[in-house]
Amino acid sequence: MTSQVLKAGILGASGYTGAELIRLLARHPNVEIAALSAESQAGKPMLDVYPHLAFLDLPPLQKIEDVNWGGLDIVFCGLPHATTQKVLAGLPSQCRIVDLSADFRLSDPAVYAEWYGHAHAALDLQKEAVYGLTEHAREAVKGARLVANPGCYPTAALLPLIPLVKSHVIQADDVIIDAKSGVTGAGRAPKQDTLFCEVSEGLHAYGVGKHRHMPEIEQELSKAAGRAVFVSFTPHLVPMNRGELATIFVKLEQGRSVESLREVLTEAYADEPFVQVAPKGLSPATRHVRGSNNCLINVFPDRIPGRAIVLSAIDNLVKGASGQAIQNMNVMFGIPETTGLEQVALFP
Amino acid sequence: MTSQVLKAGILGASGYTGAELIRLLARHPNVEIAALSAESQAGKPMLDVYPHLAFLDLPPLQKIEDVNWGGLDIVFCGLPHATTQKVLAGLPSQCRIVDLSADFRLSDPAVYAEWYGHAHAALDLQKEAVYGLTEHAREAVKGARLVANPGCYPTAALLPLIPLVKSHVIQADDVIIDAKSGVTGAGRAPKQDTLFCEVSEGLHAYGVGKHRHMPEIEQELSKAAGRAVFVSFTPHLVPMNRGELATIFVKLEQGRSVESLREVLTEAYADEPFVQVAPKGLSPATRHVRGSNNCLINVFPDRIPGRAIVLSAIDNLVKGASGQAIQNMNVMFGIPETTGLEQVALFP
Amino acid sequence: MTSQVLKAGILGASGYTGAELIRLLARHPNVEIAALSAESQAGKPMLDVYPHLAFLDLPPLQKIEDVNWGGLDIVFCGLPHATTQKVLAGLPSQCRIVDLSADFRLSDPAVYAEWYGHAHAALDLQKEAVYGLTEHAREAVKGARLVANPGCYPTAALLPLIPLVKSHVIQADDVIIDAKSGVTGAGRAPKQDTLFCEVSEGLHAYGVGKHRHMPEIEQELSKAAGRAVFVSFTPHLVPMNRGELATIFVKLEQGRSVESLREVLTEAYADEPFVQVAPKGLSPATRHVRGSNNCLINVFPDRIPGRAIVLSAIDNLVKGASGQAIQNMNVMFGIPETTGLEQVALFP
Amino acid sequence: MTSQVLKAGILGASGYTGAELIRLLARHPNVEIAALSAESQAGKPMLDVYPHLAFLDLPPLQKIEDVNWGGLDIVFCGLPHATTQKVLAGLPSQCRIVDLSADFRLSDPAVYAEWYGHAHAALDLQKEAVYGLTEHAREAVKGARLVANPGCYPTAALLPLIPLVKSHVIQADDVIIDAKSGVTGAGRAPKQDTLFCEVSEGLHAYGVGKHRHMPEIEQELSKAAGRAVFVSFTPHLVPMNRGELATIFVKLEQGRSVESLREVLTEAYADEPFVQVAPKGLSPATRHVRGSNNCLINVFPDRIPGRAIVLSAIDNLVKGASGQAIQNMNVMFGIPETTGLEQVALFP
Repeated sequence: MTSQVLKAGILGASGYTGAELIRLLARHPNVEIAALSAESQAGKPMLDVYPHLAFLDLPPLQKIEDVNWGGLDIVFCGLPHATTQKVLAGLPSQCRIVDLSADFRLSDPAVYAEWYGHAHAALDLQKEAVYGLTEHAREAVKGARLVANPGCYPTAALLPLIPLVKSHVIQADDVIIDAKSGVTGAGRAPKQDTLFCEVSEGLHAYGVGKHRHMPEIEQELSKAAGRAVFVSFTPHLVPMNRGELATIFVKLEQGRSVESLREVLTEAYADEPFVQVAPKGLSPATRHVRGSNNCLINVFPDRIPGRAIVLSAIDNLVKGASGQAIQNMNVMFGIPETTGLEQVALFP
Repeated sequence: MTSQVLKAGILGASGYTGAELIRLLARHPNVEIAALSAESQAGKPMLDVYPHLAFLDLPPLQKIEDVNWGGLDIVFCGLPHATTQKVLAGLPSQCRIVDLSADFRLSDPAVYAEWYGHAHAALDLQKEAVYGLTEHAREAVKGARLVANPGCYPTAALLPLIPLVKSHVIQADDVIIDAKSGVTGAGRAPKQDTLFCEVSEGLHAYGVGKHRHMPEIEQELSKAAGRAVFVSFTPHLVPMNRGELATIFVKLEQGRSVESLREVLTEAYADEPFVQVAPKGLSPATRHVRGSNNCLINVFPDRIPGRAIVLSAIDNLVKGASGQAIQNMNVMFGIPETTGLEQVALFP
Repeated sequence: MTSQVLKAGILGASGYTGAELIRLLARHPNVEIAALSAESQAGKPMLDVYPHLAFLDLPPLQKIEDVNWGGLDIVFCGLPHATTQKVLAGLPSQCRIVDLSADFRLSDPAVYAEWYGHAHAALDLQKEAVYGLTEHAREAVKGARLVANPGCYPTAALLPLIPLVKSHVIQADDVIIDAKSGVTGAGRAPKQDTLFCEVSEGLHAYGVGKHRHMPEIEQELSKAAGRAVFVSFTPHLVPMNRGELATIFVKLEQGRSVESLREVLTEAYADEPFVQVAPKGLSPATRHVRGSNNCLINVFPDRIPGRAIVLSAIDNLVKGASGQAIQNMNVMFGIPETTGLEQVALFP
Repeated sequence: MTSQVLKAGILGASGYTGAELIRLLARHPNVEIAALSAESQAGKPMLDVYPHLAFLDLPPLQKIEDVNWGGLDIVFCGLPHATTQKVLAGLPSQCRIVDLSADFRLSDPAVYAEWYGHAHAALDLQKEAVYGLTEHAREAVKGARLVANPGCYPTAALLPLIPLVKSHVIQADDVIIDAKSGVTGAGRAPKQDTLFCEVSEGLHAYGVGKHRHMPEIEQELSKAAGRAVFVSFTPHLVPMNRGELATIFVKLEQGRSVESLREVLTEAYADEPFVQVAPKGLSPATRHVRGSNNCLINVFPDRIPGRAIVLSAIDNLVKGASGQAIQNMNVMFGIPETTGLEQVALFP
């Protein structure tokens, strides 16, 4: 075990990904949480913000402008979209960064502008950002100053899709992703749409045909395919706190079978601690990975000949956000990758 | 309003569809509940079986062999698979029947045998059975003695798909149905898989590639297409009691647009009291129809050119089971179709 | 059946009690919904506010100042606290009123000022207000112009407690009410505290020792006891949409037994359509009454000698709010009391 | 950190407390899970029983008769009632035991027989059993061979009540406990009562006046009071997986105030790592402690003069079962008490 202790700052500590970073980092042997920012909650005791964290020994909640950047080795940024670009552009160069917002995930400024409706405000920084789907970007992450942590849906979808597309066992142009997420994905800001009574005992699709995680999935799949591809992506809101399931309908390339897909995935993830290809027949459930950094994948034959169904389950707050962020930090600083991320799934 | 009063029997009154039939028929002005069967619960007071129904004026729970068929005009049958065939074959001819089991839905005995693993035991009765998706079978239902009430998933999927396939705006061979259901669909028999702690706070697909509602959907879509078609159908279990959402990914026929689909559906259901095409942009949620006999449909453009996304929401216990059964009864006996089925959705 | 058709207005139609009034009144044979107010949502189509109600034939959502009071026989008022007093004071005298807010429930202006922190703004109107716990105020409600509809917790607690206190079988000074409510009780305004993720998979008490329903319970129990009494009342927030359960710990008067309590309650509610004393041993569950106007009560022996446990379950949006409001309207206008309120409970 | 590694056996590994023991022990630095028993599941892969645990390195599921006791230092027993007595009586003497069943909690054989309906079958073993509410039994647990791990409800209730009764600030004869539990408390055996659809969206009390945790609470409170006391205890089933909240209504002794209670509790738990007295005004929620071994307590003034309300929240599977069992093991073997139990609560 390495004996280094990194000083970490968490910007946006009052959001759900912020709280999850605290939960995980508080027990990480190589990290000391040294700064917490939370704009509107600055100055409040943690007890008023997250009582479940109030009994940990934590620094006070500050405004960003009051954070002492000098002492920080690593900054996790969970700020709302747009704010992020300005804040990160101003950080001293010794601070390495894992950004959990969407701001630095899209490498093409034109695509960014199209989906976000305005020009990117930190193009220089954008250029050096590494898209941190750890299992597929380890070398780049190692040397990166700024890692753009993938979105939750892209993580769940890309983990199975990248190896399948790269090895040409499925057709990259006919990928249909039906995704389902728990409500933490919508954040902690009070909105009518995520009130208990609006969400429980029911289900619906949202952002149909236009969710902002789409270009992110397309960017990475296009890289894997070696050409531009479009994907069909439809997210649904499920009455549960955590968890994300991607049900992916794929068309096999000529001569390929469900078994080919399983072999590709099994080989791709043979040595990965956090990605498991489930035994034949097991349907990955979000509850198999709740609270853990694991991704559970499986492949099933489809009824339509020449098609297959790929299932992928993660905890959106862990592998889909804060856990993967810490995994990236571990890689950046040469800490063994599973350090601080060995929680067994919490079930029931 | 017609003044006739039908004497109705409910076989399998202790299941969830049985209880839902009681809830609805107890307030139906043209029905008197005259017999209730519930094998293992026979002889028990309703208070022990369904306390929420205990304060209604209901006949006792009997064994099937003790039911006095003589007096019954209509029998609703919610018995488990296989039992049904024998029981219904023995009913006196004056009893008309709406069967909520899967036993009489598949018209081809070979298909039945393939999916259920044994020969059908009442082929004579099978021949006269009418598949009762009411909006598409009204004339046949009118004259039927035995109506096979559609499954919940087939109802949600076929209501939008039949008009789209019939009018050749989508390709019948490339229909991908990702369906999500509440837990009542799994019935009331105690099983580990449907315990609260196994189902809440999580999500998973089940019966992937082999759910028994698949041949039923294929049978009706093949009829609509005029040729045999296969469909991709993947159900998911969602932590909610009621509700079913079908997210259907379709390929447009040459020259067709999302608007063509909307027009076809709007025209098909213009005069239907229970099927609504939602205004552009509204994502149908199961909670919009909870407790009601409504089906809410919408169409969205897909990101992949030439594709569209069709959404369809029902309450699996109402339009997906007991409500549609009563709708069929109304049609069979010439009672106005909405009678007893005008409950406004219960939200929240 | 009376053939009169009342023109009804609903103020605050965009709240949960407003939506529930629409659900119930839309099928009430003696009511026409003639006006709907919803300040911030005025002018919007119902589809944007409550899609599940969008397919009913309803008047537009207006600002209160635009409502044509002239045509209205009955006004249901579900406005936020304080607003109510001013609005209702300005209504023309032919409009009879059922107020679902807390504004007119406390008859003593000093108690009102103590709990709400300011003087009452419509004391004249307050004087004529009738506290509308229908079963115990029928005669007064009949003649009332303004009925103050009871709070949900007071309804659940007072229905069993009033007969027990009046008949001197329990000690009025030692009543401990542990109450549990679904989240609709907190309303539809977006607040962090009622987000899905803050409420699901957990439980807590709130307003401990100081909830505003306390003086309302005390006022009515004091009336029943013939002297001022204090009660212990602790509400809890339960991860469910609807339903309220009061678990009430009472001390028996000398010589009284659990059986005495049962007899008192059975006699008190023998002829009441909406209040049922459950058979011995049945534990009233909120799901027994979901969506219905029923109250289910039972009494159990306590382990501490001389004590008993009283349980009372209602649907907070029906008998605890909109259903009871309609019940009061029926009484006010001489319509049979169960009209429009015969929904069987929705379970599961 | 001690370097010893204990070989642990878990009997009843297929139950929820068994799974929770595995979750926690799998990451305990001083434990090797050496044997797992699960009668009806013996021989099955863990994947079929608990997929979320399938990727850990675990011994196979065996029948009890096949367990090699010789190698075990500590046996956790989560068997159903009655089975336990016989199995534990036959264990070799070098195995120390933490029993999670109710079999050894009641020290008086007559009380046991009264509540369980038959004579105790292992009275010799019973005599040496230590009731393991760790904070109040540390010395006895240290030397014990057999620790009877407290029930979940008794743990939640006794942690605040024992110091209050011992220090004479409340009256021991007037303690009313209204408790609420998540559904894991009911175990994993399939029963209609704990199906998702029977439990979700609702609430009810159960075992009113006769729950078997009552004599356990009375036994320990009687010890604290120095005389026999009866308590009022009413459990409720809440639609959540984990968590337990005890709302306790107490009468103050003459001259005592809410502040006295707070002082007693604060002092009693000043040095305890797992019991926290919350700051004034914070209402302990089960979600503050989910997945952790913590107990969060607070005291509030009651509206009835001379009364107070005590709130206590735990995770029923952790501090209420498996976590406390490991805490007891740590004490028994001289391992620092928090080892393996430092999980931060999982929220949301």
